[in-house]
Amino acid sequence: MTDVATTKQEIRSRVAAARSAGRSVGLVPTMGALHVGHRALLDRSVAENGFTVCSVFVNPTQFGPSEDFERYPRQLEQDRLLCEAAGADVVFAPSPQEMYASDHTTWVNEERLTEGMCGARRPGHFRGVTTVCMKLFHVVVPDRAYFGCKDYQQLKVIQRMVRDLDLPLEIVPVETVRDADGLAVSSRNQYLSADDRVASLALRRGLLAGREAVRGGERSARAVAETVRGEIVGQGRLQVDYIEVVDAETLEPSAPLSGRVVVAAAVYCGDTRLIDNIVIDVESKE
Amino acid sequence: MTDVATTKQEIRSRVAAARSAGRSVGLVPTMGALHVGHRALLDRSVAENGFTVCSVFVNPTQFGPSEDFERYPRQLEQDRLLCEAAGADVVFAPSPQEMYASDHTTWVNEERLTEGMCGARRPGHFRGVTTVCMKLFHVVVPDRAYFGCKDYQQLKVIQRMVRDLDLPLEIVPVETVRDADGLAVSSRNQYLSADDRVASLALRRGLLAGREAVRGGERSARAVAETVRGEIVGQGRLQVDYIEVVDAETLEPSAPLSGRVVVAAAVYCGDTRLIDNIVIDVESKE
Repeated sequence: MTDVATTKQEIRSRVAAARSAGRSVGLVPTMGALHVGHRALLDRSVAENGFTVCSVFVNPTQFGPSEDFERYPRQLEQDRLLCEAAGADVVFAPSPQEMYASDHTTWVNEERLTEGMCGARRPGHFRGVTTVCMKLFHVVVPDRAYFGCKDYQQLKVIQRMVRDLDLPLEIVPVETVRDADGLAVSSRNQYLSADDRVASLALRRGLLAGREAVRGGERSARAVAETVRGEIVGQGRLQVDYIEVVDAETLEPSAPLSGRVVVAAAVYCGDTRLIDNIVIDVESKE
Repeated sequence: MTDVATTKQEIRSRVAAARSAGRSVGLVPTMGALHVGHRALLDRSVAENGFTVCSVFVNPTQFGPSEDFERYPRQLEQDRLLCEAAGADVVFAPSPQEMYASDHTTWVNEERLTEGMCGARRPGHFRGVTTVCMKLFHVVVPDRAYFGCKDYQQLKVIQRMVRDLDLPLEIVPVETVRDADGLAVSSRNQYLSADDRVASLALRRGLLAGREAVRGGERSARAVAETVRGEIVGQGRLQVDYIEVVDAETLEPSAPLSGRVVVAAAVYCGDTRLIDNIVIDVESKE
């Protein structure tokens, strides 16, 4: 039976008991509405740790005022059952009031990797993400924390925060899980109509076309981005929020493209924002 | 024998060994040039913990471009001997390169308590302080960390950071230590000439005069500040950087003065900046 802790004190005492029993601790931080992508994170944590905590917290500080905080799906009992099926030990599902004091005034800011991509389009988003992750890391004190690669920028920002602030834990990246049609699984996919869903596949097709262009010898980031854009807008139903082709570690321009690069894109399908990315090892020209 | 660790890895392994032996860990974070004020912190940590780490790190990120980073006193062997005399177990004295990656981009910001007082006069100062303390807390992972009350704003900012970010440690405030003449001990006092030293006593006299005014029934923050200012500028040799009379917890205006307030001041004696403060319980009028 996987139970739900709702207070910091409760989860701390659960983790302390596991520690006393000599078990290592894995944390899977989520906003709930768990799907097979989260399941992959949980499976990995359960395989690698004696005790797995899945946090379920729709973090208000990472949503902009016009974003979908209110309508973001909340389904704690379903989430608990998925955690139980995965063999996680406890769900940590605090209220916003439990997580944030009413006079909360301290923030963690990564100032460079957050400049472009989602950071540029969602002001304050990453400040909310880094701050809530720091809090969760301090409450749970895990040995390892698991993040999906779908939000590539988030993964890189969290890894940078851990390095810069010397957090004594390991960030474990886990491959993006896709449905059979290639769409990256996301809690926001449940917003999509059947037609939206079909249209959304152009995001992945665009990224694959970008990779083909690089493999075919294209070394201009702009040209690769235009290839991706052509595939996405050709679909007719998607609006491009951004397409960036940048160095996979620094998220800065790579010109000409070399080393390892990431093609990352965000699109709107109606009101629903979807992100995906592809990492490409650029072969040096002989 | 108290030895010196210069790398994060080294101090982590020393602390891990102490933990394995069941010892609790106290941290005294300093910039070195240790004096009897630091000694009071060390004594308290040694009394309360099985293992005491004294960090000695002149943190570049908390100095402004025109401040005294370069001339700040450095005397590691003397510091080591003082730590040894106090019974501390290890000195952690990393280089700036060991502490900060060359592409460090993550900062901790307390955004409210840092607005006035030293925060207003030293842009970026507290960002450097909170960030380096966060790093030290993650490297050493102490049960308790010891801070002097002389830098009252720093103490409050660190306490707020620990609360807001859920750091699993206790901040222990330690009373300001004064020389027999009343001057708060400070590493910067060694910059003072004999005449400067005499002049500097007006800072403490001003704060005491402010307290007398409150005890005498004054409830206007401005009037109390003017009393303090009169004593300091009457001396002739000191320039006032700021004098603030604010709520002791929020550091915000208290009008009329009530509850617990702090009178905090910074003065220049030549190029040397000195700070001091006094906390006053305002008695409600009957």
